[in-house]
Amino acid sequence: MTEHRRTNDPQGVRRRIVDAAYDAFVNQGYIATGMAQLREKASVSGGAMAHHFPAKRDLGLAVIRDRVAEAVQRTWIQPLNGCADAPTAIDRIFEEIIGELMHKDAVSGCPLNNMVMEVSQHDPEMRDILGGVFGAWHDALSAKFKADMASGRLGDLNPSSLATLVIASYSGAMAMAKARQDVGPLIDCRVELARLMAARYRLAAGR
Amino acid sequence: MTEHRRTNDPQGVRRRIVDAAYDAFVNQGYIATGMAQLREKASVSGGAMAHHFPAKRDLGLAVIRDRVAEAVQRTWIQPLNGCADAPTAIDRIFEEIIGELMHKDAVSGCPLNNMVMEVSQHDPEMRDILGGVFGAWHDALSAKFKADMASGRLGDLNPSSLATLVIASYSGAMAMAKARQDVGPLIDCRVELARLMAARYRLAAGR
Repeated sequence: MTEHRRTNDPQGVRRRIVDAAYDAFVNQGYIATGMAQLREKASVSGGAMAHHFPAKRDLGLAVIRDRVAEAVQRTWIQPLNGCADAPTAIDRIFEEIIGELMHKDAVSGCPLNNMVMEVSQHDPEMRDILGGVFGAWHDALSAKFKADMASGRLGDLNPSSLATLVIASYSGAMAMAKARQDVGPLIDCRVELARLMAARYRLAAGR
Repeated sequence: MTEHRRTNDPQGVRRRIVDAAYDAFVNQGYIATGMAQLREKASVSGGAMAHHFPAKRDLGLAVIRDRVAEAVQRTWIQPLNGCADAPTAIDRIFEEIIGELMHKDAVSGCPLNNMVMEVSQHDPEMRDILGGVFGAWHDALSAKFKADMASGRLGDLNPSSLATLVIASYSGAMAMAKARQDVGPLIDCRVELARLMAARYRLAAGR
């Protein structure tokens, strides 16, 4: 790994640090992770670390802004925009995450939820950014329900509170899966949300 | 507080330590809390602390066994057993927690969820006990749905996966409420779960 220490590629160095930090914060926790461990994992010098991230908090903010927000974008917002309707998207997203977790050794939980649990009471700025990530997720899902309603695909529902229920059940099921180290809660929620969506969409179709 | 240090009441001392630890673990986090701070908060000597809880982990286990399990019992399992049916109980439980949080300065989140997020990947024993608390909660809710079905109050549902959805949405809404420091997500989930329950119970009534 010596060549990493000698390169003159500030963006590459920064990215390596943020990658190492994201992995460590999600898997072992923000508070439990030390800067020395991250320097080692990213194989960067103390000087490079201090240049990019003078304090762990700066790194926490970068991880939330760059990686946690991106994870929600990739896992939820892009599939929502790419599917015909919200129920199809929600079912595929659950299918995808269940498949992913079944191939992993450990269930590390939802990156957003994990960070919220650790930092939101200590740090108002981090909390606001995390709240904004939840907000973007909620807005994308509400917008999809509204678009489905506008195209006559379903009827009597409140897009905003239904979006909250879907996000809450996903986040909570990830926490339960983490506690049990088992994907069962996600499988249960996938089935129940599919039934709930089918009922709401049938209702509309029957009008 | 000097009298606390001089009393000879081991159970009282132990309880004071566990109370202080529960409060600190829920509000500032397990990892972020130090033993010295807890000695101070509980006003006990280093000797008393070492006698009851040689390591922070012992105290973590006691908090999970004594307090987190008790919080789930008091908040969920007792109201479930005291209400006519599951939908009534779920709605009252959400109403209660929303009312409580609206009178508090800060949303500290669900004690069970908070502990799970911090310890479940580091400590298999703690994880197993936390998983057991989720299990007891899930069993109580499933049993209530089954009892409702047996008494003809509802029909076509899967008690186990529906119980998972309710618990997951409660846990996730608590996390979102913590991120936003706002009870809105709990209000949304209360409304959506009430609708879901009404639909399932109407379905049964219509048979």
